[in-house]
Amino acid sequence: MAEVAIIMGSSSDWATMKNTADLLDEFGVEYEKLVVSAHRTPELMADFAHSAREKGYKVIIAGAGGAAHLPGMTAAMTTLPVIGVPVKSRSLSGLDSLYSIVQMPAGVPVATMAIGDSGAKNAALYAVQILAVSDEALHEKLVNYREQAKKMVEKLNHDLV
Amino acid sequence: MAEVAIIMGSSSDWATMKNTADLLDEFGVEYEKLVVSAHRTPELMADFAHSAREKGYKVIIAGAGGAAHLPGMTAAMTTLPVIGVPVKSRSLSGLDSLYSIVQMPAGVPVATMAIGDSGAKNAALYAVQILAVSDEALHEKLVNYREQAKKMVEKLNHDLV
Amino acid sequence: MAEVAIIMGSSSDWATMKNTADLLDEFGVEYEKLVVSAHRTPELMADFAHSAREKGYKVIIAGAGGAAHLPGMTAAMTTLPVIGVPVKSRSLSGLDSLYSIVQMPAGVPVATMAIGDSGAKNAALYAVQILAVSDEALHEKLVNYREQAKKMVEKLNHDLV
Amino acid sequence: MAEVAIIMGSSSDWATMKNTADLLDEFGVEYEKLVVSAHRTPELMADFAHSAREKGYKVIIAGAGGAAHLPGMTAAMTTLPVIGVPVKSRSLSGLDSLYSIVQMPAGVPVATMAIGDSGAKNAALYAVQILAVSDEALHEKLVNYREQAKKMVEKLNHDLV
Amino acid sequence: MAEVAIIMGSSSDWATMKNTADLLDEFGVEYEKLVVSAHRTPELMADFAHSAREKGYKVIIAGAGGAAHLPGMTAAMTTLPVIGVPVKSRSLSGLDSLYSIVQMPAGVPVATMAIGDSGAKNAALYAVQILAVSDEALHEKLVNYREQAKKMVEKLNHDLV
Amino acid sequence: MAEVAIIMGSSSDWATMKNTADLLDEFGVEYEKLVVSAHRTPELMADFAHSAREKGYKVIIAGAGGAAHLPGMTAAMTTLPVIGVPVKSRSLSGLDSLYSIVQMPAGVPVATMAIGDSGAKNAALYAVQILAVSDEALHEKLVNYREQAKKMVEKLNHDLV
Amino acid sequence: MAEVAIIMGSSSDWATMKNTADLLDEFGVEYEKLVVSAHRTPELMADFAHSAREKGYKVIIAGAGGAAHLPGMTAAMTTLPVIGVPVKSRSLSGLDSLYSIVQMPAGVPVATMAIGDSGAKNAALYAVQILAVSDEALHEKLVNYREQAKKMVEKLNHDLV
Amino acid sequence: MAEVAIIMGSSSDWATMKNTADLLDEFGVEYEKLVVSAHRTPELMADFAHSAREKGYKVIIAGAGGAAHLPGMTAAMTTLPVIGVPVKSRSLSGLDSLYSIVQMPAGVPVATMAIGDSGAKNAALYAVQILAVSDEALHEKLVNYREQAKKMVEKLNHDLV
Repeated sequence: MAEVAIIMGSSSDWATMKNTADLLDEFGVEYEKLVVSAHRTPELMADFAHSAREKGYKVIIAGAGGAAHLPGMTAAMTTLPVIGVPVKSRSLSGLDSLYSIVQMPAGVPVATMAIGDSGAKNAALYAVQILAVSDEALHEKLVNYREQAKKMVEKLNHDLV
Repeated sequence: MAEVAIIMGSSSDWATMKNTADLLDEFGVEYEKLVVSAHRTPELMADFAHSAREKGYKVIIAGAGGAAHLPGMTAAMTTLPVIGVPVKSRSLSGLDSLYSIVQMPAGVPVATMAIGDSGAKNAALYAVQILAVSDEALHEKLVNYREQAKKMVEKLNHDLV
Repeated sequence: MAEVAIIMGSSSDWATMKNTADLLDEFGVEYEKLVVSAHRTPELMADFAHSAREKGYKVIIAGAGGAAHLPGMTAAMTTLPVIGVPVKSRSLSGLDSLYSIVQMPAGVPVATMAIGDSGAKNAALYAVQILAVSDEALHEKLVNYREQAKKMVEKLNHDLV
Repeated sequence: MAEVAIIMGSSSDWATMKNTADLLDEFGVEYEKLVVSAHRTPELMADFAHSAREKGYKVIIAGAGGAAHLPGMTAAMTTLPVIGVPVKSRSLSGLDSLYSIVQMPAGVPVATMAIGDSGAKNAALYAVQILAVSDEALHEKLVNYREQAKKMVEKLNHDLV
Repeated sequence: MAEVAIIMGSSSDWATMKNTADLLDEFGVEYEKLVVSAHRTPELMADFAHSAREKGYKVIIAGAGGAAHLPGMTAAMTTLPVIGVPVKSRSLSGLDSLYSIVQMPAGVPVATMAIGDSGAKNAALYAVQILAVSDEALHEKLVNYREQAKKMVEKLNHDLV
Repeated sequence: MAEVAIIMGSSSDWATMKNTADLLDEFGVEYEKLVVSAHRTPELMADFAHSAREKGYKVIIAGAGGAAHLPGMTAAMTTLPVIGVPVKSRSLSGLDSLYSIVQMPAGVPVATMAIGDSGAKNAALYAVQILAVSDEALHEKLVNYREQAKKMVEKLNHDLV
Repeated sequence: MAEVAIIMGSSSDWATMKNTADLLDEFGVEYEKLVVSAHRTPELMADFAHSAREKGYKVIIAGAGGAAHLPGMTAAMTTLPVIGVPVKSRSLSGLDSLYSIVQMPAGVPVATMAIGDSGAKNAALYAVQILAVSDEALHEKLVNYREQAKKMVEKLNHDLV
Repeated sequence: MAEVAIIMGSSSDWATMKNTADLLDEFGVEYEKLVVSAHRTPELMADFAHSAREKGYKVIIAGAGGAAHLPGMTAAMTTLPVIGVPVKSRSLSGLDSLYSIVQMPAGVPVATMAIGDSGAKNAALYAVQILAVSDEALHEKLVNYREQAKKMVEKLNHDLV
């Protein structure tokens, strides 16, 4: 059963959010993905957010660009932890997305990641870290993942010389 | 009956949005005011937005600061014209509010005004301008208002010399 | 008879403002389009603005980039509602256009849209929303447009799976 | 036993991070607080981060300002979820703090909150949300907290009229 | 007869533009001052700009804040050199004023000065420099002014030790 | 004899500053052009600036990018009016160039133009406007230039329909 | 004999640069201080920079605000390492100072510190670090300074509990 | 023996940092290069920094992008002078890198260079300038390098005419 939901404001966000999906696959964490537009489908967003905990999701990852209201509005309608990914926008390079996601008022937090692909990957990792708080097997995978990252740096240095 | 609704994300926005109310009073345009938090009361916001046209409102003015989702989310749930006022925020001087309100995706416009008090006053004027498209008496008041503004400049110059 | 006027500061803005024209066409709203440069043709701008209401226009949409004075100056010389579209500029990505349009002083509002194509599309929609305040048939079209947008999201999700 | 650790880069950050502590108190969640400077006490930071999971912490909240390296460096040395709070800085209003915390490279996420007091409060709430994923009693408290926030808005409206 | 005109968008700009007037006084250059609002008195602005050269002005200094259209619009309606002073604005610290004044399109230049008091003083100096191109006596005063500035630095160093 | 000097910080600025030269050619205003690097050839810069007035120049146009010190430093060593052109920089899009040129302290003004090509063209026009203060024949050319610009807009509208 | 020179663009920068002087005092490093304005006293600046190495200085620390040309221009006229301190400016909070100092073109580096007091203190420390490369006694003092900083954090934690 | 160490946060930074290596080669200064990720290999970074002085390095040059913690964290664990190069980032053009490197708190300075290639070249030059404080032969090379830069400008002017 899917523990993570990946939602995004528009199908064009998929190019970014695919990074999230791929990394969750790597960790063997099940997820569902859905286009949920805060502005075009507010009722769908409300239905999704209100029922997310009941459906068994434990973490929600939401990617959006521009006036990126999806992560914050979803967070307003669920008690599940929401992770927000600011998608790079055409004119303001994602700065508008970043501000719209991170500057939430006291009462409704969104865990904001970096703009773009790095943020999308880190959203997956952060979801894994949340799940790993009470899942030792998953925690092992995290430790291994970190080890591999270290080894890649060593290999890079070997190649660089 | 009230033709304009003034909504704001928090009671602290009233210091700014009172400028809107005062100017509507000056024009004799009736309004109602309501604190509607996109994040703390998303259902109230949805109820308000969905029923706004039926209740007879013709224009909605929404003020909000920080990750200012109220204007855009309200616009997503009504076909009435929504005017957004970016309230000056503590750390980013309202730039976060401005981006969150103005950078709406294609499909759901918000008529964004200047940050802070000037924007709040102009929201009232813009609502009057919308109503005046089909209300000749109100249009006369607008013309007079503009005339007074011109005369004030003349008086200023008289005083300056 | 044309109810909407689309004006732009330079012929290079047409690439952006064509989005406005296309969407008005979709709604069957008549419009005229005109290059009016605030800086190269200030008299033409003044003539246009002063006579716009008499000519029967109900809404003016103005697109401009850089030190984008056209929307604000037009608004200063008409009581019609003006919608401003910040065109993306070469060096500052439209941030200069946005500030020049949105930061109007109290007294002369411009309804500012998002930077670039999204903003140009939304300018058309906002004009339709203003007209629809007193035009039930047009309002129906708006409701349908919103419905189609929702269905497109559903279709996207169908394709995504 | 403390499930949450609140660390901060300097004692001057306590004015901000006290908001985190107060809200955790309200939820009855135990925490420890510690000044850990990434730059003045890097070894203390490494010791803290490396042993945090063993000591029983489940979430780390790190507040820092300027070139705010503490949240990201702590995240690099633990697999626990780290929540970062950008403290408002004197010259750049916390924009430097925000960028330094949120723009983490792929591989090491930090859940970034809003700049300043709102972010500090939300850090506490987000920690509670993470813990509540597998703690039904805590989840109940979250639901109540949200209810109270809604009621406060209703009361505000009552007072406003 | 006045060779320089100081115009400003609002009487609140006088606090800044008084610096211009004082420095012109110091150089014995005659000037007139006028509140001319691009948005509240566009006709006054047009009349002023169109007749400025005939009236004998040789340089126009224009101060404005926010969506600061006055310098650029005046420049569009005269062939006299226009010097623009971005007045510090409440929410965006004069960055909006700066962009609105400096980012003029090819064809209509505005000589933009620094934001605020320094810019207002420099506007006076730049006007003097323009006039001094063909006025040897004024040029002498400029040379003396520069000498005094140098001596003041020497005195500062004397005091500092 | 050349009345205008075009200096630039690096040969790569020529792509931008050629716009200045071409427009001065169009007006029949003689100029000389020179690469003068504030940082690589500070003595050449000082020699140039100190002797510029004696050599008969009446206006100096200086283009530079990044930490663009050339316009301000030249202005510090001559009493001639200096016009600064912020050249678009690789990483900060010319914002660094703009700030370095425009934010001059009281005492030494630089007439700052828009970033990039538009600014380079306007530098030429502004030099012409300064010279035209006391040159009626040149003034006529300016008036004609403005007329042509107006006619081009009319032609554009003819083509657009 | 003084190994470090502290120069600043204006006497108002002393409030910031006094932090540099105080910290050098603490390390027993001799210094001289001088107001040298790049714009008001360019010849003094050139004299200072050209003779600095001969006079026995080993490091130059330069503080300046706004269009802060002093550090870069000094660096252009000496082969000594120059450390730049961006002084907080009135309108742009030191961002203009930072860009003007740090964005130097290839060929003439300036070692840029943080904006304001922290940067001024760090300029002193960095000068000490440069001198300590070949001065073991000074290096010992650095090590002790770092130790004290660590102990202060421990003390802070003691007080915090 | 290598006197300079070039470290970088990721192998993708090599495209930028190669400029540093090439210029050090030109000066005949020996260096070693190493990928050291603050976030993926914090222990490697600590080992490197703690032993750098013992190994005989005199200057460390660190390039990093995004939340660029490498220069500051290295500086926190060594008393050697550290030079930081902000690598241009994908979404924020290196502004995040710049803020993360330059805004260090009092106590731990990083000598920050310009964003990107210019900064990388200048890092090499600044290292040479530090070493040249007590190395007359190297100082001669610096003087020659500066001379060549001057001559190149002369040649450019020759070609430009």
